[in-house]
Amino acid sequence: MRKIAESTVRRLSLYLRFLEEFQAQGIDTVSSEALAARGGTTSAQVRKDLSFFGSFGKRGLGYSAPELVTRLRDILGLKQSYQVIIVGAGKIGSALAQYRGFAQRGFHIAAVYDADPAKVGLKWNGPVVRDVKQLERDLAREPMDIAILSTPAPAAQALAERLVRSGIKAILNFAPVQLLVPAHVAVKNVNMALELEALSYALRNR
Amino acid sequence: MRKIAESTVRRLSLYLRFLEEFQAQGIDTVSSEALAARGGTTSAQVRKDLSFFGSFGKRGLGYSAPELVTRLRDILGLKQSYQVIIVGAGKIGSALAQYRGFAQRGFHIAAVYDADPAKVGLKWNGPVVRDVKQLERDLAREPMDIAILSTPAPAAQALAERLVRSGIKAILNFAPVQLLVPAHVAVKNVNMALELEALSYALRNR
Repeated sequence: MRKIAESTVRRLSLYLRFLEEFQAQGIDTVSSEALAARGGTTSAQVRKDLSFFGSFGKRGLGYSAPELVTRLRDILGLKQSYQVIIVGAGKIGSALAQYRGFAQRGFHIAAVYDADPAKVGLKWNGPVVRDVKQLERDLAREPMDIAILSTPAPAAQALAERLVRSGIKAILNFAPVQLLVPAHVAVKNVNMALELEALSYALRNR
Repeated sequence: MRKIAESTVRRLSLYLRFLEEFQAQGIDTVSSEALAARGGTTSAQVRKDLSFFGSFGKRGLGYSAPELVTRLRDILGLKQSYQVIIVGAGKIGSALAQYRGFAQRGFHIAAVYDADPAKVGLKWNGPVVRDVKQLERDLAREPMDIAILSTPAPAAQALAERLVRSGIKAILNFAPVQLLVPAHVAVKNVNMALELEALSYALRNR
């Protein structure tokens, strides 16, 4: 399969959500027009995005929602579940640990780490906070798929390096820094201030 | 100025951060190569991104960091400050209300709203939570620039419509739904589950 753009992967995730919404309403056949209208895009874009993965649907009949859901879940790697750790038990880390949308998608928060002795041992709505000193030992014993990094900015790069050395291949980074990691490690950044700046740009250039 | 891509705006925000880092280290002249290395991109990309806004820097000498910082802040609309409200005082909303990175960039959290009577009147590390019933009245009296929507998914669309009717032109949406808003309203979505799915895609298609 050739490499597809991040923006396409993002739209595939959205199509999956919309299809599930349609199914919840009892709708089992969905046209590219209906998917496009729901997502604020064009039907040509929907057909193009789905064409990356072979042919779906029948001309004039639309897509079978159950079939397309299965294929999208497969494409997105969602047929398996993932073990996730959160590093950084601050406000954002705490909110993420309790975020229900993760488990629904098969992302299980297996452990939470912090460097603050006052936090270590506390039980949230879920896992007990562990000492970040244990990170390497724990990951050697029980490998994890994804790390969510929600530490303050100055701590993030060093922790990312420790995670990578311990075999982590995917990081969701909430720290407001650009992480430098080897090419085989996937990083996604969620930077709230950056998103607000995109809005200020939009407001300024209306 | 012609319309520039979202991905370019995002890189401009990052260049601004890197330049500020360089300045904090006492470095006042920065080459496109140095910016590219810091951001994991190419110097050709840096020069292309900056060329959208006229000519910066001198060939062979690099960019003047203070000058480029000023221009980027101007381009991104960061020379003014913005009044921001948070709608939805849950875990995410609470974390955002206390996020220091916002105020540093000129985004001031002016008010927080929730529908839950148990939360209304509570004082966080900042604003008192107001009843969301007051939204229209408050916005009529004191217009706001940006709304952060951090409600559960089922409440989001109706609230977005109320915000738009009350004159809000920019929404940062944390609810895991695709909002339908008029074209003159800018929306940025932060969807944690979607980010994790992009990572699961990356893990699956290595």
